[in-house]
Amino acid sequence: MTSKSPSDFLKNIIGKPVIVKLTSSIEYKGILACLDAYMNISLEQAEEWIEGQFKNKYADIFIRGNNVFYVTPQKKRNLQDL
Amino acid sequence: MTSKSPSDFLKNIIGKPVIVKLTSSIEYKGILACLDAYMNISLEQAEEWIEGQFKNKYADIFIRGNNVFYVTPQKKRNLQDL
Amino acid sequence: MTSKSPSDFLKNIIGKPVIVKLTSSIEYKGILACLDAYMNISLEQAEEWIEGQFKNKYADIFIRGNNVFYVTPQKKRNLQDL
Amino acid sequence: MTSKSPSDFLKNIIGKPVIVKLTSSIEYKGILACLDAYMNISLEQAEEWIEGQFKNKYADIFIRGNNVFYVTPQKKRNLQDL
Amino acid sequence: MTSKSPSDFLKNIIGKPVIVKLTSSIEYKGILACLDAYMNISLEQAEEWIEGQFKNKYADIFIRGNNVFYVTPQKKRNLQDL
Amino acid sequence: MTSKSPSDFLKNIIGKPVIVKLTSSIEYKGILACLDAYMNISLEQAEEWIEGQFKNKYADIFIRGNNVFYVTPQKKRNLQDL
Amino acid sequence: MTSKSPSDFLKNIIGKPVIVKLTSSIEYKGILACLDAYMNISLEQAEEWIEGQFKNKYADIFIRGNNVFYVTPQKKRNLQDL
Repeated sequence: MTSKSPSDFLKNIIGKPVIVKLTSSIEYKGILACLDAYMNISLEQAEEWIEGQFKNKYADIFIRGNNVFYVTPQKKRNLQDL
Repeated sequence: MTSKSPSDFLKNIIGKPVIVKLTSSIEYKGILACLDAYMNISLEQAEEWIEGQFKNKYADIFIRGNNVFYVTPQKKRNLQDL
Repeated sequence: MTSKSPSDFLKNIIGKPVIVKLTSSIEYKGILACLDAYMNISLEQAEEWIEGQFKNKYADIFIRGNNVFYVTPQKKRNLQDL
Repeated sequence: MTSKSPSDFLKNIIGKPVIVKLTSSIEYKGILACLDAYMNISLEQAEEWIEGQFKNKYADIFIRGNNVFYVTPQKKRNLQDL
Repeated sequence: MTSKSPSDFLKNIIGKPVIVKLTSSIEYKGILACLDAYMNISLEQAEEWIEGQFKNKYADIFIRGNNVFYVTPQKKRNLQDL
Repeated sequence: MTSKSPSDFLKNIIGKPVIVKLTSSIEYKGILACLDAYMNISLEQAEEWIEGQFKNKYADIFIRGNNVFYVTPQKKRNLQDL
Repeated sequence: MTSKSPSDFLKNIIGKPVIVKLTSSIEYKGILACLDAYMNISLEQAEEWIEGQFKNKYADIFIRGNNVFYVTPQKKRNLQDL
């Protein structure tokens, strides 16, 4: 995926499933709804994974940018049941 | 819930029950009264939960933005008694 | 208490008793004299509480904003004697 | 002491004895010579106190703002001898 | 490699294999797709290495700048299989 | 020493022996060559002291501002031999 | 070496061997290629030293500024072999 800047990279994957890893090694898997210049991120149909364990589901979640470690497209989504 | 930017996302849920999780894993559940660009948040009828334990009630509380980890709408509110 | 923004919320409680909780779980209870956009706070007739223990009294105290965790109105003030 | 803003509060006590507490629980007691918008502080005739123990004297000391926790007027000064 | 400024240095290695070391001693090895002034970095064909152990592969990954420790060109790429 | 602002205070001691204490309790004793608004400091004929032990000498050293804890004039300089 | 400001000090040593110490007590010894206002630093022929042990060599390395602790000219360079 060629993008001129990292924010282009992120805009290219809006509406797609992503994994958002936070500095505290917690992961959120969901549909990237939108994000802003501070890397604040809104996810839809989000799952919370802590140390590889599925923990929680959120219809919508707003994650504050300064905790974001990396964002990567999620190849295959197999949704979890609570 | 489709929003153009994360702050739109948050504006959409003003007046509604939310869960505000802080980086120190403390949660505040209350009505999202208002917030600003720094993610400073005012909650009304707020409950303080620490490691899953209900601890405290606040009629109004102002939470400084830089401690905010995520914000998510609260599905069902069952208010606690102190 | 309806306020358009968190700073309105705080302005509404100037001159009133508040609890200022800091990220280090120290609390200052006093009259909110004034504050600024960085959340620097001046309290009058302030009491210092550490882990629920009353520790100190200050006629005036200036608290630097970046240590502030939350601010909430104090329902009933029962002043401590040193 | 009524002041419109925290920095007015601090200007009111320039030239007076203060206690400057730092986030590392070290205290500096001295005459508040001057300070700036970043909370950088210059003290004169300063004493260094670590966990309640008098440690050091400085004719002049410049303390960088981001380590400042709070500033409060010092009621009575009883100067220490090294 | 002579460059007038560090960002020139980084622009010179866009499209080339690099090692991105993060403050948490995790390394990402991949093709430097793009980066911005905040040191936000997009890598393609990225490998995640933790304490010298290959852990994961990402077709594309966006790494937030404030966790970056250093970036250096990767001499020889021997791609890992998951 | 009366100065209108902390940076005046520091300018007054340029060319003089100072002690620069860092947040990590390491001290640098040397001649204050220059400094800037970010508290970046250049010292000449600098000595490195760690927990009261003389460790190292530097003809010139540039110390990044955000690690600076305090700066104070050094009364008497007794230079160490490596 | 007289310089009007710390950044002049650093510009004076571009092209010369330096030691860059990071807040995590890791040192990089190399030729200072260039640096910018954020203290981002590019080194050439760089060696990585961890707790006094030579660890690695990099033809070019970009080090992010916020991890820099100090920079000092390196008196004598005795290059290491991997």
